[in-house]
Amino acid sequence: MMRTRPLKVALLGCGVVGSEVARIMTTHADDLAARIGAPVELAGVAVRRPSRVREGIDPALVTTDATALVKRGDIDVVVEVIGGIEPARTLITTAFEYGASVVSANKALLAQDGAALHAAAEEHGEDLYYEAAVAGAIPLIRPLRESLAGDKVNRVLGIVNGTTNFILDKMDSTGAGYQEALDEATALGYAEADPTADVEAFDAAAKAAILAGIAFHTRVRLDDVYREGMTEVTSADFASAREMGCTIKLLAICERAADGASVTARVHPAMIPLTHPLASVRGAYNAVFVESDAAGQLMFYGPGAGGAPTASAVLGDLVAVCRNRLSGSTGPGESAYAALPVSPMGDVVTRYHISLDVADKPGVLAQVATVFAEHGVSIDTVRQQGRLDGSGEASLVVVTHRASDASLTGTVEALRKLDTVRGVASIMRVEGE
Amino acid sequence: MMRTRPLKVALLGCGVVGSEVARIMTTHADDLAARIGAPVELAGVAVRRPSRVREGIDPALVTTDATALVKRGDIDVVVEVIGGIEPARTLITTAFEYGASVVSANKALLAQDGAALHAAAEEHGEDLYYEAAVAGAIPLIRPLRESLAGDKVNRVLGIVNGTTNFILDKMDSTGAGYQEALDEATALGYAEADPTADVEAFDAAAKAAILAGIAFHTRVRLDDVYREGMTEVTSADFASAREMGCTIKLLAICERAADGASVTARVHPAMIPLTHPLASVRGAYNAVFVESDAAGQLMFYGPGAGGAPTASAVLGDLVAVCRNRLSGSTGPGESAYAALPVSPMGDVVTRYHISLDVADKPGVLAQVATVFAEHGVSIDTVRQQGRLDGSGEASLVVVTHRASDASLTGTVEALRKLDTVRGVASIMRVEGE
Repeated sequence: MMRTRPLKVALLGCGVVGSEVARIMTTHADDLAARIGAPVELAGVAVRRPSRVREGIDPALVTTDATALVKRGDIDVVVEVIGGIEPARTLITTAFEYGASVVSANKALLAQDGAALHAAAEEHGEDLYYEAAVAGAIPLIRPLRESLAGDKVNRVLGIVNGTTNFILDKMDSTGAGYQEALDEATALGYAEADPTADVEAFDAAAKAAILAGIAFHTRVRLDDVYREGMTEVTSADFASAREMGCTIKLLAICERAADGASVTARVHPAMIPLTHPLASVRGAYNAVFVESDAAGQLMFYGPGAGGAPTASAVLGDLVAVCRNRLSGSTGPGESAYAALPVSPMGDVVTRYHISLDVADKPGVLAQVATVFAEHGVSIDTVRQQGRLDGSGEASLVVVTHRASDASLTGTVEALRKLDTVRGVASIMRVEGE
Repeated sequence: MMRTRPLKVALLGCGVVGSEVARIMTTHADDLAARIGAPVELAGVAVRRPSRVREGIDPALVTTDATALVKRGDIDVVVEVIGGIEPARTLITTAFEYGASVVSANKALLAQDGAALHAAAEEHGEDLYYEAAVAGAIPLIRPLRESLAGDKVNRVLGIVNGTTNFILDKMDSTGAGYQEALDEATALGYAEADPTADVEAFDAAAKAAILAGIAFHTRVRLDDVYREGMTEVTSADFASAREMGCTIKLLAICERAADGASVTARVHPAMIPLTHPLASVRGAYNAVFVESDAAGQLMFYGPGAGGAPTASAVLGDLVAVCRNRLSGSTGPGESAYAALPVSPMGDVVTRYHISLDVADKPGVLAQVATVFAEHGVSIDTVRQQGRLDGSGEASLVVVTHRASDASLTGTVEALRKLDTVRGVASIMRVEGE
């Protein structure tokens, strides 16, 4: 049973993702119509630079006035692939007011204002879908929100930024330093000219906020996410990791506390065992590892970015929203009923790998061990290594048992005050064990 | 906004999966109610042996009369975890007639009668969900049916049977033979007393039929799936695989033909490169690799069986079906509009690894190569190895380029007729390249 009146789609943004969305809507029009139960029609495309030639898109559909397009009144679904906070936020809320549902790929906006946008959607009885906002083409929002709706998620551990995974993989496999690996990523188009959002983990932090919110049925804002970039990871860190049977990944980690009463969300570089499924995620690929009460350990793997993969996620949402529209229903909205407190980083409990530069003389290890003990941080292994450069210095590598981040921070502060500790070369968390 | 009148669930079957479903419905009742928007109540549990004590289940709910339970008239959702064709099929269609939606974990029934069951659900305006029927807890049906609804899936390559993956992994990692590895799987509870359904790939074939149907929007029945078990895989095959940088997995493979006009579905042991993400799927885990036009390569990984994981999938469906019920809608039904022909095995195109026992004398290789050429099968590499046992025999290992299964079959028949070919030791397909 096919409705003949088409559903009308307004596309906001026609860059790498938007142009792929438009292309697939044209080339796969028959399939989309069959799967939805009605044809879908591209009713307008809002862009900033209308003069740019866009192959396959009727120039009559192109406009620079996104607001007028959204306010037309006959639009069924607005697809927002502009990115950034404004004007995307205003356009989305306007869409709801004018009776359209929204499909968005905007992680920054969802991480910052997800609750308000969900509320606006619900107020107007519209859908807000955003599978493409996290890990590109990898189905993740829908599995977490729907497939695991009868389960209790305890941890989400993800590689959710392809740029940084490419860089870290390159450092690991070739021994390259950070700058050299970044340069290659830039040359190959994996890193932007200004890589800050990726390498300082702003991008991954936004995704962590979205994932934690859905996984724990709790509002988690970008500000709640502890964030540490990966620009200071060195070849020496990779050597240390290998000695422990680990590699280094930039991980987004969302955890329920052991007592179940609070959650944490954080993004930072971490060592993970080579035997962990995330350790073998190569290049610019993404993967998210989910641990839940009943299902156990699941992993979702695929391309985390790129025009076509992101368009695939957008179009999957578009089909779902169109189907909902035809049946007069809406999909699941925000689920934040659990309203668990988000604990600060100091409460996070994990293991640590600490490299110290120390004076090469008797008694140093005893001093260092005393500081750890005084702060309640239990040591798993210590490895001391004299240097061959005649400097009278040595390296001390300490791997701890599980301890709170606050205890570890206190330990490190105290270590820095010891005369015999010349410097703290690196501190790296150890995850996924 | 919470409705107070509960949704009523009838549970058919209370074995390993059913008892977990009942347990989680009790322990997570508040979470389920919050996520659905109304409480759910276990209204009855149909079992074969009512005398067995079932911890946590009110004995007053237990009945041996599944039909009467389904016909009560006040049941919202029937959860069918009995398995097998009858009485499951009749109970499911009766449920639809009496106004209930159905969540099922029954792969055999879905593979055999999916179309008829979908039609019955649609006729009565009810939902039929079955995420648990394929790969246990791994969200797979929903991602394929919904997340990739705007994309074009070209290939599904999956490890969908945990028992056989455990056996093959054991053979690979320890050098054990098939029988020894099977014995260990049985001792550990990974294999049933009669392992036929697993090792002869009946189980995997049912899952392949379901996956192919959803991936290609085409009806694929169990009879359409080519099936070859893994009981004849030997230690020698693993040695051959390793020489090629491969391992051996039992794979369910659903493919769209290169011209897009037909599809194939098959299950058989195959060599795959160690670098393929499926190669590192260990033990009883499952994983499904999906290749699509826009999304590219995705992989879904997790436990493919077990009470709690399967219950997680059942409960995710239960939440979805209850939500649909409250909003007066139904989820996506069967999508078979593409109606592509399912080609026979002879049309499948892939590569082959063939081990021959041949006479150790000049001219054998020329004879063998001629047979391949006459059948249009192009040879990639040949390795000839004289035996040290004085038998006057040699081994000849041929790896082909891509060729149709029909051509390969013809080649092998002709090879068997050569005087110099003493026997065909093994034929193994090579996939995932």
